[in-house]
Amino acid sequence: MKLASIDNNTRDGELVVVNKELTKAIRVPEIASTMQLAIDNWADNETKLQNIYEQLNSGTLTTGTFDFATVRVLAPIPRAYHWADGSAYVTHVELVRKARNAELPESFWTDPLMYMGASDAFIGAHDDIEIENEEWGIDFESEVAVITDDVPAGVSAEEALNHIKFVTIINDVSLRNLIPNELSKQFGFYQSKPWTSFAPVIVSVDELKNEFVDGKLHLPLISALNGEVLGTPNAGIDMTFNFGELIAHAAKTRSLMAGTVIGSGTVANQGSPTGSSCIAEIRCLETIKDGKPSTPFMKFGDQIEIEMKNAVGASIFGKINQKVKKYEKK
Amino acid sequence: MKLASIDNNTRDGELVVVNKELTKAIRVPEIASTMQLAIDNWADNETKLQNIYEQLNSGTLTTGTFDFATVRVLAPIPRAYHWADGSAYVTHVELVRKARNAELPESFWTDPLMYMGASDAFIGAHDDIEIENEEWGIDFESEVAVITDDVPAGVSAEEALNHIKFVTIINDVSLRNLIPNELSKQFGFYQSKPWTSFAPVIVSVDELKNEFVDGKLHLPLISALNGEVLGTPNAGIDMTFNFGELIAHAAKTRSLMAGTVIGSGTVANQGSPTGSSCIAEIRCLETIKDGKPSTPFMKFGDQIEIEMKNAVGASIFGKINQKVKKYEKK
Repeated sequence: MKLASIDNNTRDGELVVVNKELTKAIRVPEIASTMQLAIDNWADNETKLQNIYEQLNSGTLTTGTFDFATVRVLAPIPRAYHWADGSAYVTHVELVRKARNAELPESFWTDPLMYMGASDAFIGAHDDIEIENEEWGIDFESEVAVITDDVPAGVSAEEALNHIKFVTIINDVSLRNLIPNELSKQFGFYQSKPWTSFAPVIVSVDELKNEFVDGKLHLPLISALNGEVLGTPNAGIDMTFNFGELIAHAAKTRSLMAGTVIGSGTVANQGSPTGSSCIAEIRCLETIKDGKPSTPFMKFGDQIEIEMKNAVGASIFGKINQKVKKYEKK
Repeated sequence: MKLASIDNNTRDGELVVVNKELTKAIRVPEIASTMQLAIDNWADNETKLQNIYEQLNSGTLTTGTFDFATVRVLAPIPRAYHWADGSAYVTHVELVRKARNAELPESFWTDPLMYMGASDAFIGAHDDIEIENEEWGIDFESEVAVITDDVPAGVSAEEALNHIKFVTIINDVSLRNLIPNELSKQFGFYQSKPWTSFAPVIVSVDELKNEFVDGKLHLPLISALNGEVLGTPNAGIDMTFNFGELIAHAAKTRSLMAGTVIGSGTVANQGSPTGSSCIAEIRCLETIKDGKPSTPFMKFGDQIEIEMKNAVGASIFGKINQKVKKYEKK
């Protein structure tokens, strides 16, 4: 099934079921009014929501449906209790290190990098990315993300796969020029990871049985800046740690609350044969080749589009399509 | 006023108003059923809850009240959307560095250290601290924390003080032997910061007008391990960054959601004249004096009590009183 949260002037938005083609949607207040409430009690809600989804797809349900394109989507979970972002494409980390002549610790191939992100700062697929200062080095990061139910502490990587309920794609906005100082302090990202944007819908794992295999999503992730495609790396290739391994890492010493969002980190394929999922990687490739980067970071007004299509070219999660805008404090 | 969340077999618990002496409480479903709902709409709820609190204190409200000691408290916000822990007592960081012959970067005195913590892993004042392995180096960290309303991005440190609505004390459980590897990866704490425990109640800022001054709480924080007091440092002394500065740091590039919890980091006074708020600090002092630490970290069965008392010796937030217990995966 496909689910979204739409703007109803509340902090959590309103849960809707969306059809496969992303054209029609319906509110389901009799099942759950918000996404978090649906996930809090997923065992009870799954079948009910799946029934609505099937009726929506078959056309037998029409009363109360509306055109999905006419509403403003929020992030599917507009505010979440946990957002853990891995860096599972180690080839990307290796490249970044190479560009600054730093060695990649051998342990990075076996021990996942993961940071805790701002789960209260999720924004919708078409929301502006509001940043105060261009000099902070504004970048996008195209990633795959999954959403879990309750995960017990000490879960194994294999068991963890069963806790993945939904898949989606995200834009983990990064402020590149603030990162070096934060990393040097060793306490992780804070100011350098302001907002995270989500595709319009999350898609249940059963809906992706041919694509989401072994804890990886085996499809190209398309990123376009100002209309120009910058990369289409396949998210199923060169993912050193699958989502089961990422979840097990996050849950090693404590449980994860239902609705936890786990990110893959910037999707990248070794050697970047089909381009990149962030500007930083392009700049690293330029630095290795030319001694210095030439592609600038994003400017106010720049547009970023991120999308993933199925085998017949249909959008799976809907498109992230955002502009960077100067933030003016009220 | 004093507020708490009590166990009602839901994830968010039930909001109650507690009297000044922490003896009586009352449910307030007509105002808000959960703490997050109360804070989501604080401007509307503050006066209503304050009225209940005053009636509870004066004894004019008795119908529906119950003995606060008879219920199980959850963390005041059992699951929150944002948990930002600073390390504001830089004297503590300096000591830790000194014990391993590492220099403190000069910038640490002007640029706060802050990590994002597990806001979906908050536990109640009397809950067991469930940890799988003693060898991970189990430690407590006694801290002061504040809870904010909605904070706009780019807030100044001075403006930020107005966004502090509540104060409490917490135990930021740390797994010391997992920290070095995580810090070396630069992505911050993850597995090494499993659970955070909260005092039974949060207290509104107006209630602490003589104690919470200039964004600091000017009272000793008492930590006792297995009944022996290990430290009573004054939280108002040697706090390099006040809570306004910590909030401004967290909100530099994006907004903070109402209900954000900001921690002070381990409370410490220079030279530790009245003891310490964590075992790690004691071990650092031993290392500097004797060349090696002699106090062990916590074992299964160990009890930690954390409390803060007012000028006449009454408990302000109630006592954190927990045991470490071996976690058994179900």
